Amino acid sequence: MKIDGTHYRSIWRTAEGRVEIIDQRWLPHELRIVALETRADVAAAIREMWVRGAPLIGATAAYGVAVQMAHDPSDASLAETWEVLHATRPTAINLRWALDEMRRILQPMAPADRADAAFRRAGEICDEDVEINRRIGENGLAIIRDIAARKGGGRVNVLTHCNAGWLATVDWGTATSPIYHAVEAGIDVHVFVDETRPRNQGAHLTAWEMNHHGVSHDLIVDNAGGHLMQHGEVDLCIVGTDRTTARGDVCNKIGTYLKALAAQANGVPFYVALPSPTIDWTVSDGVREIPIEERGQDEVTHVQGRLEDGRIGHVLISPDGTPARNPAFDVTPAALVTGLITERGVAEASAAGLAAMFAERAVG
Amino acid sequence: MKIDGTHYRSIWRTAEGRVEIIDQRWLPHELRIVALETRADVAAAIREMWVRGAPLIGATAAYGVAVQMAHDPSDASLAETWEVLHATRPTAINLRWALDEMRRILQPMAPADRADAAFRRAGEICDEDVEINRRIGENGLAIIRDIAARKGGGRVNVLTHCNAGWLATVDWGTATSPIYHAVEAGIDVHVFVDETRPRNQGAHLTAWEMNHHGVSHDLIVDNAGGHLMQHGEVDLCIVGTDRTTARGDVCNKIGTYLKALAAQANGVPFYVALPSPTIDWTVSDGVREIPIEERGQDEVTHVQGRLEDGRIGHVLISPDGTPARNPAFDVTPAALVTGLITERGVAEASAAGLAAMFAERAVG
Repeated sequence: MKIDGTHYRSIWRTAEGRVEIIDQRWLPHELRIVALETRADVAAAIREMWVRGAPLIGATAAYGVAVQMAHDPSDASLAETWEVLHATRPTAINLRWALDEMRRILQPMAPADRADAAFRRAGEICDEDVEINRRIGENGLAIIRDIAARKGGGRVNVLTHCNAGWLATVDWGTATSPIYHAVEAGIDVHVFVDETRPRNQGAHLTAWEMNHHGVSHDLIVDNAGGHLMQHGEVDLCIVGTDRTTARGDVCNKIGTYLKALAAQANGVPFYVALPSPTIDWTVSDGVREIPIEERGQDEVTHVQGRLEDGRIGHVLISPDGTPARNPAFDVTPAALVTGLITERGVAEASAAGLAAMFAERAVG
Repeated sequence: MKIDGTHYRSIWRTAEGRVEIIDQRWLPHELRIVALETRADVAAAIREMWVRGAPLIGATAAYGVAVQMAHDPSDASLAETWEVLHATRPTAINLRWALDEMRRILQPMAPADRADAAFRRAGEICDEDVEINRRIGENGLAIIRDIAARKGGGRVNVLTHCNAGWLATVDWGTATSPIYHAVEAGIDVHVFVDETRPRNQGAHLTAWEMNHHGVSHDLIVDNAGGHLMQHGEVDLCIVGTDRTTARGDVCNKIGTYLKALAAQANGVPFYVALPSPTIDWTVSDGVREIPIEERGQDEVTHVQGRLEDGRIGHVLISPDGTPARNPAFDVTPAALVTGLITERGVAEASAAGLAAMFAERAVG
């Protein structure tokens, strides 16, 4: 999407053949673009979260393989690259998928052909992600268009949680794609951006995206969404997901569930935008079956941001040594989800709804 | 309650006759006790939030009148003191009540008698607040005791939001009073403390109280409570309130409503602790009738805490100039409230329940 009028992706190859990314550690305070010249650069970028978001991690890993093939296209190098990059974030599903895909393509080739083929496939992986998200956006746009029509062309207020934006994908984002499409379609859209404690991805990233693309928005604390919905200030919620079960339960950033409860209580449609590869067909009951990662206490007791002197730093908000619990995700039961916006269309959040839309994947 | 083993109130008179308070601006990082020697000191303490919480503001104002009467007990001084102190936080109901009460007592007296009478009445106002909160605690203790018994003496997990603790009152607090009583009764209690963005009163004050009184607790982000309730980790919620309507709708710190929704969805009892003077008998439908204060955007875009060098400072979490909405309170409809813990007993959150318990106050 756009940064102050210029179109960007979150990862790209320059005319000179260099792979570049936005180093997201400096957002929202600074836009730093860095080149990933070596496999070590790519590993650091993934491990140290210069890039984040499942699709973008996958795309970055794919380019990591390509960069290394240009340097050393041997079998040993290819095998080692899979290991090195996989170890950067071993639980990231898309990372593994992208590395497997690159190896599948490159392994049978003569080493001399590998670099070109790797860059080509990495580029395709990026384009495929963009296309999936574009379709999610078109399918979500229809929902926003309906609401705008019902409001006689009045402003459509969308609440979103965390960052399922273009910075987490290659372009468009998932939850944000319908919003960007609506803006491009000339619909008057306003976005309420949950700050999304503890890591504040909403404040750091979604607010930054909205700001630089020129989308009307307000940052709110995570506590405020219920009140806004109760007073008719939110027309729909759209969030992303890390993992959706075969029956439509949605695992997403902690706090999503509270917003879904408020949406249901106030008759606000609650949509989840997702590329279908994030559906986990092996899991049904998300609350019981999905283990929730508990992260470090420091994320709760400290808040990162820009200090008055311009440096990035953090403040301690609690007494020294305060114990904290930090579940990173929660599960929103399918019954609270109005619909799942996928690249194929909007599915009902149920086993039947998902099976009907993805008949080839659903297990009986 | 206790600070590292020593009993404190939030305001007190020393043996030498000085009025002292805890300057709460430095919590949770530093315990600073200051003397309020003049009316100007008292006005600053209220206006600049060295003290906060309705009951404590009222008690501080009462002592402010006493301090001034010791300096100048004239009619003009008494009248001026009402004006000066009322102007510090003109919307605080308890402030006005305490000033009216002091004037009612002192006006008919000879000026020479006023200082002693004023200190005596200010002391009584403090003691009356302590007694109300003690009774709230006893009534809430019965609820916690029942849950402990049902769990066979197992740990009782309480979630609370914001700070309705002893720091907001003279002692015991409202929502925390049942917790402190349970601890004194030897019940194994654990408290989940919502950080309570944007001002983080949970992290700054409630965590500090729990820490120094020695109550088992975990700080959590406001997003986490729904997940914890969904997984059976919370046995009951107890929150405070700024204003309760005649039918039991509860206005409290923003985010309370989301926790009440999660409690109802997961069968977790949701109690509100309140001194009966905070019931507004003139209001019925809290969502429609109570205007919600919108506070400054800076509270959302910035977070205050202790910097690495030990100073108190803040960090900016969003892009420069990000617009924010900051509703400070929300209303939890009575239907989500299991019971109202008052000094008289636990009332059903309904017009009938409140009218039955406070027959002399209920109108209509």
